[in-house]
Amino acid sequence: MSGQALDRIRIVLVRTSHPGNIGAAARAMKTMGLRQLWLVAPEHFPDPVAAARASGATDILDRAQVVESLGDALQGTVFSLALSARRREWSVPPVGAREAVGQLLPLTRQGEVALVFGHEATGLTNDELALCSQPVMIPTDPAFSSLNLGAAVQLLCYELRMAALAGAPAAEAVPPDNLATFDEIEGFHGHLLQAMTESGFYEPSNPKRLLPRVRRLFGRIRLEREEVNILRGILSALQRKT
Amino acid sequence: MSGQALDRIRIVLVRTSHPGNIGAAARAMKTMGLRQLWLVAPEHFPDPVAAARASGATDILDRAQVVESLGDALQGTVFSLALSARRREWSVPPVGAREAVGQLLPLTRQGEVALVFGHEATGLTNDELALCSQPVMIPTDPAFSSLNLGAAVQLLCYELRMAALAGAPAAEAVPPDNLATFDEIEGFHGHLLQAMTESGFYEPSNPKRLLPRVRRLFGRIRLEREEVNILRGILSALQRKT
Repeated sequence: MSGQALDRIRIVLVRTSHPGNIGAAARAMKTMGLRQLWLVAPEHFPDPVAAARASGATDILDRAQVVESLGDALQGTVFSLALSARRREWSVPPVGAREAVGQLLPLTRQGEVALVFGHEATGLTNDELALCSQPVMIPTDPAFSSLNLGAAVQLLCYELRMAALAGAPAAEAVPPDNLATFDEIEGFHGHLLQAMTESGFYEPSNPKRLLPRVRRLFGRIRLEREEVNILRGILSALQRKT
Repeated sequence: MSGQALDRIRIVLVRTSHPGNIGAAARAMKTMGLRQLWLVAPEHFPDPVAAARASGATDILDRAQVVESLGDALQGTVFSLALSARRREWSVPPVGAREAVGQLLPLTRQGEVALVFGHEATGLTNDELALCSQPVMIPTDPAFSSLNLGAAVQLLCYELRMAALAGAPAAEAVPPDNLATFDEIEGFHGHLLQAMTESGFYEPSNPKRLLPRVRRLFGRIRLEREEVNILRGILSALQRKT
């Protein structure tokens, strides 16, 4: 079970600027038995510095998927954690790494999941964070929270391995059976945006904080496939009456 | 309690060859709130490469104690863990990092304790290992156990911080400020039922499981007052177009 679960976890690095950090992440992953590295618009890749820092984990680099947007890297996933150094005003509050990994691991039985790490200096944009299911934080000392990207990947991969080795998922946390995938949820958000715009509730010229608030609301639910169908059915019925 | 406990833990690096690893260890320590770095016969120290990799944790380097032997670094300690990558024939069997840290932390009430890391390539000698109370191992993938020294320090300091925080009262789990009341949520469900009925999506004569499913969906999160207002605003806008 543990190996299978770890094979279904994507480590996604977004707009990484230093190739050494990509290599360090590959090494960190391999020591903990993870294999799937996804790179969103890396500044330099492939790069000899990445290969040198990978130090024997070059197979992870060779098989890395390079894509253009975070949405591409999340296609087909059923859950994603986003590392967040700071608390954002409009997002779901972050949970600690150990707890978050305890949520994520059982969901590998339903499909692929992702752990997303932003740019070294600027992190993830608010739009990128909004694509992910749950922010996660590493409980560093508030007086000095400057974790290197490779170190952050190392800590989260370690927690994943520890959780996988612990085996049986926590009995209370039975995950819902039939989670919607990233693309199904994005389809719902697209439909909702269209209905809100048509009806005049959402004014693109005066967006205020409406879209982030709506994403934060539905992002907390972890929608099931059937629930997405119900919500879209309600929207379609209301639109038809128009 | 947590801060005091962490102040009583010495991170001891023995015969480290690369000064970059000393800097990375200092940074890893500081992110987790540890302060005491002891260096046994480092090959290069002080060194600008160490300072660069410390990245803001140079105060840890400035106060590092440089000594000649592991025995010097362990003077006055009441317990010590030694990181051991491989099982030695004659030593005490190693315990996992999480369990070992659980043993170590309470002993800080009795005096200083140490966590000892050997040379990058060759580890600790048998004589050095014999000076320590207990070997500890990080449960890496047996097929690729090549943890960087900085990464090993990072993982153990993280476990120390997690254990120290577990002893402190949980500061988190602050509930959202502005939860909707029962009657506001019921008002939303009444409004949604009306909109679903008007639009023909809900047929009272053939209810199936629609209403319980909708309640289960929105019942999984604790809606805030502002979110109820947004949801009802969307419904009203779609109804007005009707």
